[in-house]
Amino acid sequence: MTALERQGANARKAAMVLMTADTAAKNRALSEIAGAITARIDEVLAANKADTDTAAENGMSKALLDRLTLTKERIEGIVDGVRQIIGLPDPVGEVLERTVRPNGMEIERRSVPLGVIGIIYEARPNVTVDAAVLCLKAGNAVILRGGKEAFNSNRAFVNIMRDALEATGLPRDCVALVEDTSRQSATELMQLSEYLDVLIPRGGAGLIKSVVENSKVPVIETGVGVCHVYVDSDADLEKAADIIFNAKCSRPSVCNAAETLLVADSVAKQFLPMAKAKLDTKNVEIRGCERTREILGDSVVPASEQDYRTEFGDYILAVKVISGVDEAIDFVNKYGTGHSEAIVTENKAAAERFLDGVDAAAVYANVSTRFTDGGEFGLGAEIGISTQKLHARGPMGLKQLTSCKYVIRGNGQIR
Amino acid sequence: MTALERQGANARKAAMVLMTADTAAKNRALSEIAGAITARIDEVLAANKADTDTAAENGMSKALLDRLTLTKERIEGIVDGVRQIIGLPDPVGEVLERTVRPNGMEIERRSVPLGVIGIIYEARPNVTVDAAVLCLKAGNAVILRGGKEAFNSNRAFVNIMRDALEATGLPRDCVALVEDTSRQSATELMQLSEYLDVLIPRGGAGLIKSVVENSKVPVIETGVGVCHVYVDSDADLEKAADIIFNAKCSRPSVCNAAETLLVADSVAKQFLPMAKAKLDTKNVEIRGCERTREILGDSVVPASEQDYRTEFGDYILAVKVISGVDEAIDFVNKYGTGHSEAIVTENKAAAERFLDGVDAAAVYANVSTRFTDGGEFGLGAEIGISTQKLHARGPMGLKQLTSCKYVIRGNGQIR
Repeated sequence: MTALERQGANARKAAMVLMTADTAAKNRALSEIAGAITARIDEVLAANKADTDTAAENGMSKALLDRLTLTKERIEGIVDGVRQIIGLPDPVGEVLERTVRPNGMEIERRSVPLGVIGIIYEARPNVTVDAAVLCLKAGNAVILRGGKEAFNSNRAFVNIMRDALEATGLPRDCVALVEDTSRQSATELMQLSEYLDVLIPRGGAGLIKSVVENSKVPVIETGVGVCHVYVDSDADLEKAADIIFNAKCSRPSVCNAAETLLVADSVAKQFLPMAKAKLDTKNVEIRGCERTREILGDSVVPASEQDYRTEFGDYILAVKVISGVDEAIDFVNKYGTGHSEAIVTENKAAAERFLDGVDAAAVYANVSTRFTDGGEFGLGAEIGISTQKLHARGPMGLKQLTSCKYVIRGNGQIR
Repeated sequence: MTALERQGANARKAAMVLMTADTAAKNRALSEIAGAITARIDEVLAANKADTDTAAENGMSKALLDRLTLTKERIEGIVDGVRQIIGLPDPVGEVLERTVRPNGMEIERRSVPLGVIGIIYEARPNVTVDAAVLCLKAGNAVILRGGKEAFNSNRAFVNIMRDALEATGLPRDCVALVEDTSRQSATELMQLSEYLDVLIPRGGAGLIKSVVENSKVPVIETGVGVCHVYVDSDADLEKAADIIFNAKCSRPSVCNAAETLLVADSVAKQFLPMAKAKLDTKNVEIRGCERTREILGDSVVPASEQDYRTEFGDYILAVKVISGVDEAIDFVNKYGTGHSEAIVTENKAAAERFLDGVDAAAVYANVSTRFTDGGEFGLGAEIGISTQKLHARGPMGLKQLTSCKYVIRGNGQIR
């Protein structure tokens, strides 16, 4: 048995205990976790300093270094997050459907935990606590495989969580950290179908693609967002300019930010200069089609086919002038990643046509794509945004971390 | 582009049309399919005769040959199945949740088709129509990859369905058959993640394992059932004997048939001879643990570790005497395949303990495992029994062939 298989077997055992733990027991453990992180904050800060020192020595970029860094305030934010999850309703044990069959047997479909969840993620150590606590609340054991840059921070958090679980009478192995942070351990985790029920990759497009293609464990694909805003011929152009500015600039690094602006030809000449004036305030680089460059001038970089397929995650926007809503639907379905897609129009029929015809997790009429988020949707904390169609689509909260089972009670029914 | 990629691209295009087809349009197509199969029955029978002639020449076993054979009555049964699906409610377009957020945007979660479904199956040609029609009713295009033994029958059915789709104004490519029935084509289908949203294998354990391990397309695992009946110390033994006889003998080849009998030690001496007397009427071969052989005598074959992991699909039953309900739960969770598991007991606490602690799609108290079936559960026709925890668990009907999307309407909301 490899070290990872042993962790898998231990997690499976722990999951069987957690499966029948009641809400009070799970909340007690989460509360203990919140308290213990606060009490042992110096241990976390010291571990994080070791990580950031090494990262700085190795020349990590300032942006990444910032993501890796934990401060007292950030840790308090993480603890607040844990307390919020304590307040959310327990998704387990809900009777989803109930019927009595003609032969008298009673059938109940009941929500149950998934079992053991594997999470593969990159450099942000806050994921360690956020993800583990969501999994625990939904009754699941979790095996975390974080990036090597955050290893000390992750280990400090996991040690604290394991101690807290034990202190409240639940198995330590409800949370485990993969000690080996080499590429090999990620590959091995993807083969662990005997012990893992689901694998969730969180990170860049490369990581996600690799997990989707190589995992034998069922995967929930999250996150990559090449999102569009389509400005229709019947759009309120002021509204449209505000929406594209917000969708592109309010936080360009996140998955629900817009990457491509589509504009109906009939309004392009009027709208594009309006949009550009706003985008210029953030120095957004525009990469446009021929028609866009005719309107906005040669300072606009010509857009390549590849630009329309890229999640820039930066102050860059691809622009294309198109004929109308039908071309918009076709374009979005071809180039989008099924994440978040918006139309701006005052024409109800055009809006509904777009909402029906676009195949994505979230489709918007006259709203910025930036709202695709568990909190903004009123669903509570989320573990990611699913862009696949099986099991979960859109923000994945506690409910999406459960499965169901049929419970049948009778008095000797045979078939 | 390979032939299969071309089929994938065509199916994707057809799926975009089907995605917005209304219930009436889909039902018209199904009705046309039912009528056309009836009208062209001679074409189907001739194609099937070609298949069965070849199979007989190649020495196919009688049981398999029977599964491959279509008769007028069997085809009428298939057509009846189509008509039943016309009568089921459309699972697409249902508003599953609806909220208005404080900023005024309206969020609706709506059921939508999955998109393109691939099905890999073995020698039974009725699956071609059953599966395709379920997929169509749920708004999905389907690519069928059946076994080579049934190729002519499958092609006849698919040609009829494609003609019927076209006759009612839907794209022919909503249904497609993979022409190449080599192992290579199955492998290629598993790589077709650009065009397929889901892959469902239907068949034996070997086929299913191969698809789960090799597919890049998300898979729904169906079918393998190593199911247990546990007779508790507080069981009504008459009831228990009826249930194990029914679970083993009413149809031993199906996935919800019992393969292993577990008996509490305190009732084993009384119960095992009662059970054996019934099972002997069907010449069931018993493979027992040491204690079973002490009670029933040396005529009982000793059970190997492998026997407890085997889906016999035949008149063979593994038997083990155990200490009680806790050992039963551990044993079932270790050796079961998460399909259907039953306890027989008059003790409510023991029953609930088993129902809570056993991790399976369907858990029964005092009912035969044979009821795990879409029809028996009142869910209508099913495409298989899912034994995985993601997306669907238990009988997969029309609802499980859909996904959902968030539809958000507003008037200029930005974040």
